[in-house]
Amino acid sequence: MARKRIVIIGGMATGPKAAARARRLDAGAEITIVEKGTVVSFGTCGLPYYLSGLIGDLDELRRTPAGLRRDEDYFWRQKRIRVLTRTLALEIQREKKRVALFHLDTGEKSFLPYDQLVLAVGAEPVIPPLAGRELEGVFTLTHPDEAQAIAAAIKHWGVKKVAIIGAGVIGLEVADALAGRRLSVTLIEKMPQLLPGLLDPELAGLLAAHLERQRVKLALGVQVLGLEGDDAGRVRRVVTGTGAVEADLVLMACGVRPNVSLAREAGLKVGETGAMAVDEYLRTSDPAIYAGGDCVENRHLVTGRPVYTPLASIAARHGRVIGTNVSGGRERFPGILGTTVLQAFDYNLGRTGLLEKEAAGLGLAVRSTLIAGTDCSHYYPLHGRLFLKLVTEAGSGRLLGAQALGPAEVVKRLDVLATAIACRATVADLINLDLGYAPPFSSALDPVHQAAGLWQNLEHGLAVAVTPAALKRELAAGADLQLVDVREPEELGERAIKDRRVKNIPLGELRERLPELDRNRGVVTVCELGVRGYEAARLLAQEGFTEVRFLSGGLAAWLDEREG
Amino acid sequence: MARKRIVIIGGMATGPKAAARARRLDAGAEITIVEKGTVVSFGTCGLPYYLSGLIGDLDELRRTPAGLRRDEDYFWRQKRIRVLTRTLALEIQREKKRVALFHLDTGEKSFLPYDQLVLAVGAEPVIPPLAGRELEGVFTLTHPDEAQAIAAAIKHWGVKKVAIIGAGVIGLEVADALAGRRLSVTLIEKMPQLLPGLLDPELAGLLAAHLERQRVKLALGVQVLGLEGDDAGRVRRVVTGTGAVEADLVLMACGVRPNVSLAREAGLKVGETGAMAVDEYLRTSDPAIYAGGDCVENRHLVTGRPVYTPLASIAARHGRVIGTNVSGGRERFPGILGTTVLQAFDYNLGRTGLLEKEAAGLGLAVRSTLIAGTDCSHYYPLHGRLFLKLVTEAGSGRLLGAQALGPAEVVKRLDVLATAIACRATVADLINLDLGYAPPFSSALDPVHQAAGLWQNLEHGLAVAVTPAALKRELAAGADLQLVDVREPEELGERAIKDRRVKNIPLGELRERLPELDRNRGVVTVCELGVRGYEAARLLAQEGFTEVRFLSGGLAAWLDEREG
Repeated sequence: MARKRIVIIGGMATGPKAAARARRLDAGAEITIVEKGTVVSFGTCGLPYYLSGLIGDLDELRRTPAGLRRDEDYFWRQKRIRVLTRTLALEIQREKKRVALFHLDTGEKSFLPYDQLVLAVGAEPVIPPLAGRELEGVFTLTHPDEAQAIAAAIKHWGVKKVAIIGAGVIGLEVADALAGRRLSVTLIEKMPQLLPGLLDPELAGLLAAHLERQRVKLALGVQVLGLEGDDAGRVRRVVTGTGAVEADLVLMACGVRPNVSLAREAGLKVGETGAMAVDEYLRTSDPAIYAGGDCVENRHLVTGRPVYTPLASIAARHGRVIGTNVSGGRERFPGILGTTVLQAFDYNLGRTGLLEKEAAGLGLAVRSTLIAGTDCSHYYPLHGRLFLKLVTEAGSGRLLGAQALGPAEVVKRLDVLATAIACRATVADLINLDLGYAPPFSSALDPVHQAAGLWQNLEHGLAVAVTPAALKRELAAGADLQLVDVREPEELGERAIKDRRVKNIPLGELRERLPELDRNRGVVTVCELGVRGYEAARLLAQEGFTEVRFLSGGLAAWLDEREG
Repeated sequence: MARKRIVIIGGMATGPKAAARARRLDAGAEITIVEKGTVVSFGTCGLPYYLSGLIGDLDELRRTPAGLRRDEDYFWRQKRIRVLTRTLALEIQREKKRVALFHLDTGEKSFLPYDQLVLAVGAEPVIPPLAGRELEGVFTLTHPDEAQAIAAAIKHWGVKKVAIIGAGVIGLEVADALAGRRLSVTLIEKMPQLLPGLLDPELAGLLAAHLERQRVKLALGVQVLGLEGDDAGRVRRVVTGTGAVEADLVLMACGVRPNVSLAREAGLKVGETGAMAVDEYLRTSDPAIYAGGDCVENRHLVTGRPVYTPLASIAARHGRVIGTNVSGGRERFPGILGTTVLQAFDYNLGRTGLLEKEAAGLGLAVRSTLIAGTDCSHYYPLHGRLFLKLVTEAGSGRLLGAQALGPAEVVKRLDVLATAIACRATVADLINLDLGYAPPFSSALDPVHQAAGLWQNLEHGLAVAVTPAALKRELAAGADLQLVDVREPEELGERAIKDRRVKNIPLGELRERLPELDRNRGVVTVCELGVRGYEAARLLAQEGFTEVRFLSGGLAAWLDEREG
């Protein structure tokens, strides 16, 4: 029997993973990776840590744990996988089952026949058609060469001011990396919030306040009109709808778009998201051709709809599934939740599943719950603050998504919630989840339990929550409210709401001092984290107050929040 | 309508939680907590951190996040909950629905009538009937007074040598706390491993090796015969079956047993574990009496059987459920997985669900998988080593349990696995779980994915794993094996297996050097973490070698492991 020929176009994430898996399953196959660049199997996600200086040498991002460099020789010697670098795939000739190649170094063309073809061609950065985008000092960051060029520019040009266009994951990570090198960073985002694809506005507002405390300049809801340079052709400023931002280095971090031209020209199906469409086996519309990683769309596990979510973790898992299936296996890729996490400015944050705005946009009846809490026992000296938001279907309590943010351990909670969502759990399933507790790791009731418990209380009508943003709007509109701050006098200090409608009645005095409140006017109870506020709201409701709400997330969310 | 009278016996964990929840649900109820000691709502889990000095004042363990001390006055003012401290519950008179009380300070007796009674009476430390157990300097640690006495002894007696009898969670945590204060610590355990209730032997062996590197003396599989003191009646040594252990302070950490005498005398049902039996609503055999926390047994979610698992996290969740149900609600407590985590000597570790030995003991067909890995991208400078073991039902792949250990983030993985087990997931469900990835938090394939993938490979017969312990036994028995160490020469150094049957052939040379191996003799491939060993085993199997295995967990598990 002839040896199966497996050709993989793209050598960064999905490609090498699929190739290695295929080799382990099929000793005889001829496996070839075609890569247009010079490096393969590179840890692109590590680039921000190279810019920050945490990783000293880009080469570390292409080494195995044992220190071997994953180059052409490595793949051949270790895995009998042939890697063709500096090689463009010009055309897929499906009827002849071959790929037309162009060898960049020799200028030669050749054909590579395949039995199974894998498209792992990734994505390209979106570069808005701005005047001045060709100026020196304007970068994108998806490739090690770009990271090296940015590092060289910082080192040799005396860069002081950096403008980052786009406040997504890369924008935030690079802002952190460069602010840590004492550069002045301005984040410019056309949407009115940070991380618009990742956070609902209230969590984005908490992050924005944190970044401003770290002296990052934020220009949110700001349209970039163009870039201007000096006589030497080097960028000097970003012109926006609200004025110019001085910058001697500009990073365009406006997201990526999938590379689909090769597939489209070959007549393969492109999905409604603009990325390649694949079935649950990651097969394209041609059964001999698989595709995975940043060039394909995924099925969202909550909505069942296709989404474009280019992430390294998904690309890696795609690689394993494709490697199995091109070797005669039949493994399903179930879909994704878009779980995305990052660390920036000593905050950990992320989301899984749907945002509230996404769920609402789909016409779902949504109930969301926000809590402020700590990641471990509050008496344990190393605890940190966190905010956790659950997004659920009202009534059924089906989990739709979650977001979390803070200096604390939040990724654990997101991973737990991602697992629960994938298992189609409801909030009720969370309330008694048997999570690990010891003082360094959690409180006896984990934030996941606390959020689920609060959700249940709200669903059962025990109390009504008001978010900081909504309350601020009401107060600004002159609402006739009684704000009852139930904290202890010594907690107030600077952390008080400055408003004449606020009255401080510590929770322990509330029962005696009920006569000070007007039962016929609305009341909002307020505390530090929302726990006592909830308790006070219960007390007032039990005492016959009819229009009572509590501030969810407490003063922690109120004071830390920045509009937009 | 008369006010409902809710009486709660026990004021540490479940009791106050149930009382507070009941108050929020029922403003009118008369709620009374009866506590035999002087403190209520105390964070007992924090005691080891008081001994280590991390927590400076025991009072911190009874304060709210806002700094209020949770004493009798707090419960009355904040929650209208009456707390009777220094009050013994002598008898439950079920027919009269009242509890006979004895007030320790006044010597008076009284009766407290109830409509709903809650038993949250906790557990007592097991004290083996050893000669000398009454000597000065012999302690248990379940109460703040004992922590204070231990701290005072260390401070004033010039304690230098500590013996801890029992290597369970408390034993380990206190060993860490006291070793950190430069005391010489010996851990004595009658079972032949550390944490026998929490870890399978191979993980316990890894922990033991780590503790010995930290200069903790281990006496495993050692029976304590008695304690001996000096003329002043102060303890000086622990006499064991293998000799005497010098000690001027002894901690008995032999576990706890549930307080069931009150319930038993009242004719309430005690379960087969020796703890109180409750139904899924946490109701005892008397529908007016609920029970929770360390005095009850729980249903194990995997086996459906009753187990006795006294844990603060379970006690807290019990409190919420009981608070709901005594207030007319009807909430189920689904059961537990026994998820237990701890931090000791900068290792994080724990388990959820069943151990392999427990699953095998139940007659289940078990397949377990052990991986060695890192908690985040290996190029990220702050990564740490971890070991993760999955315990599953062979064939179906149903998850039964997991254990993890290392200086790395392991609790996140255990919480994810606890969630998956609670949702009755299989290993196949784990392989493409959409967990959060960024270099500070994980690798693109999380250890959970890696363990699940390896499980699948083994289940599909792609390779056969051998554990370090099993291989050591075979080698010791003179097995005619070829051990192929496929690491690079520069990796060997001191981390080599010293055995004449070992041959070093780096993975990249294995294909050319196949003639050096005898196809008719057994081969075991070996590398650092087990990944290349698996790959080498695949290669040899594909080349027609019939008896090939790889060392699971790699040299990491082999070298770190200590027998027993």
